[in-house]
This record gives sequence, C-alpha cells and structure tokens, in this order.
Amino acid sequence: MIISELASTSGTPAATIKFYVREGLLPAGERVGGNRTEYTEEHAHRLRLIRAMLEVGRLSIGSIGQVLAALDRPDAPIAETFEVAQRALARSTASDTSAPSARALDRVDALIDRVGWAADCHDNVGRGIAAQAVDAFANAGYELPDSYLDAYADAAQRVASADLTAVGELADPSDMAELMVVGTVLGDSLSLGLRRIAQAHVTSERRLP
Amino acid sequence: MIISELASTSGTPAATIKFYVREGLLPAGERVGGNRTEYTEEHAHRLRLIRAMLEVGRLSIGSIGQVLAALDRPDAPIAETFEVAQRALARSTASDTSAPSARALDRVDALIDRVGWAADCHDNVGRGIAAQAVDAFANAGYELPDSYLDAYADAAQRVASADLTAVGELADPSDMAELMVVGTVLGDSLSLGLRRIAQAHVTSERRLP
Repeated sequence: MIISELASTSGTPAATIKFYVREGLLPAGERVGGNRTEYTEEHAHRLRLIRAMLEVGRLSIGSIGQVLAALDRPDAPIAETFEVAQRALARSTASDTSAPSARALDRVDALIDRVGWAADCHDNVGRGIAAQAVDAFANAGYELPDSYLDAYADAAQRVASADLTAVGELADPSDMAELMVVGTVLGDSLSLGLRRIAQAHVTSERRLP
Repeated sequence: MIISELASTSGTPAATIKFYVREGLLPAGERVGGNRTEYTEEHAHRLRLIRAMLEVGRLSIGSIGQVLAALDRPDAPIAETFEVAQRALARSTASDTSAPSARALDRVDALIDRVGWAADCHDNVGRGIAAQAVDAFANAGYELPDSYLDAYADAAQRVASADLTAVGELADPSDMAELMVVGTVLGDSLSLGLRRIAQAHVTSERRLP
C-alpha cells in the first residue's frame, strides 16, 4: 500500500509516519520506482503498537524506540527481550527525582523473599519503583504494614500469571515477546482502571463515614 | 516555624512554597507582625502530600489542587471525597486522546456484573480507563479473553480490600479521606513496581523460549 493508504488504515497522518521512519521507530517503505514507496501490513501492525504505547502507555518517543529495538532482536530469549523492555518502560513510568532509601529497598527485598519470588527478582527494575512508593507513603505519614505489601504482591502475582498465560497461548516467539511488552504497558492501564472501580465497590460495601 | 525552617523540614525550597501558596495548594502562613510569617506542622504535612503526588504520582499542579480541594471539605462523606479525587486523578493518568469504544465499555460493564461489583461501579471513572486499555489491546492485535479480565479484576479487588483495610484502621475521618487519596496515587506505583517483579518471577518459572 502507499503512504496515504497506510495513513488511513492506521489512523496516523502521513507526516507522523514519516517522522517515525526518521526516528527509527518504523522501517522505511520499499521504493518501487519513481516517487512510489510501498508499505506492508507489517508497517500497519507496528504503527498500531506505537500508537498503543503512546496513547495508553504514554511512553516517550525515545522509550518506544528502545522497546521496539528490544522486539527487533528475534534470536534473543524472550526473558531477555522482556527485561530490556521493562528497563525502557521504567524510565517513562518511574519517578526519577529521588533514589529510594536503603530502608525501603530492604522492605521490598524482604517482601520478595517472603512471597518466595526467584532470587534474580532482586535485580528487577520494579524493586526501585516499589521502594520509591514505600518511601512516598512513609513521607506522607503512612508506614505501610507488611500485610499491605503482601496483599499487593499477591495481586501482582495473579496479574503476572494471567499475563504469562496469555503469552504462553501464542505459538510464535516474536508474537510472545510482543505481547509481553505491549501487555506490560497496557496492563498497567487496565490494572489502574479496575483498581479504581474495585475501590468504589469496596468503599460502598464497607460503609465508611 | 518561619519559611526557612519549613523549607528545610520539608525539603521544599522557599520559592516553591510561595508558589504553592499563590496557586492555592497550601494555605498562607499567619502574619505575626512585621515581616514574620508563621507556618505550622499542618503546612509541613501538606507539603509532604504535595511532594508525594508530584514526584511519585506525577500529577499536574492543577490536578493536585483539585485533589486537595476535595480533602478540604471535612463534612463531605469519605466516599464522595474519594470520588472527586478519583476524577481529578483520572485526568492526570488516563489517556484522553480517544474515547473508549462502545464495545470495550460493554466488556467492562459485563465484567463488573460478572464479578458482582456494586451497581454504581458502572459510573466510576475507572470504567473508561479500563475500556481504553481493552481497546488498545485490540488495536495492537490482542483480543483479551474474559479469563484475563477476570484475573485482573480479582487482583484489583484484593488490592482495593487492602487499601480499605488500611483506611479502616484510622480513627479520624479526615485522615481516612487523605489515605484513600494518597493511597490511590501511590498504590498505583506500588502495583506497577510489584507487577514488574512478579512478571520476572513468573517468566523464570515458566521457562519461555
């Protein structure tokens, strides 16, 4: 298809498509003589991914580039692709204004051990993000009890199991890697939305003053 | 305390404190003769809240103002304060570029009914946020199965129960409202961080290619 068709199929203006090509987010189309450049269904698919990461994940162009670069290494093990993508995502999501305290990191490490997560989880980017949240609760005057952290970890494990079950149902390793990455971005939004609704439900159930 | 003491206690520069007062985020100090203005522990507490919402929640100054205004209505029922705050937060968090499709909204409504959440949950801001995520998954080529949504809803319910248990342990209604609001912002970050770690754990457990 030509660029105007790609633009209307994907709902992305032609100028934006050209910008993504210049930024390396999208492979260039194939020149087929004269002024004509051909784009394929693969371009349309990648545009949908970029759009999901931009609009729902609110990632920066730079982070999207890193995530896509991780997806473009087809021989890498999925766990490795996923780790690269998680790190790129973390830069868009986490507050980078202050490093977490040693105390909060210790609490997250103790949590990882308490719930029996694998030893290499201590190197995961999520450790710093969770520790920053623990610090922020403490700064706002709330020392989170272990039972609260345990409940959140239990919920996280359920969500991650659903993620990996969905991934495991795919046949193609590159589709699997893609769903891990896209699911990480979009699943955050889904979690956030459902958490709001669940809070409203539990609030109405418990009859607060 | 005077402004320089408030600045050093809270780790917020005096110029920023004055900016927050002008923006209505922080009540003005009390003039106690001449050039001297007195600030109290309440100012320090509110500065910590603002900082948590800015740095970890990444809310805009405008959204923080709306959240604090909701907290400043001490006679309002907690559920109402919370709803106002949720709406202010949603403007900072949700993608507002495209309205969710009727189909995605139907799926979230069916989910709310399936898991037995209260009828007024259909009016919650989270409904649109979750529906946008469902749309984005579909646009990226993944039609989420009901089992996936059910697992996420189950996790959301666990997290919301932990939130409301923490709130229920406080005695003062204004502290309760504050924890609901702060917990909503900071709990999103905590969820996100722990979800990353849990994904790494489940990935290593399931041995993907």
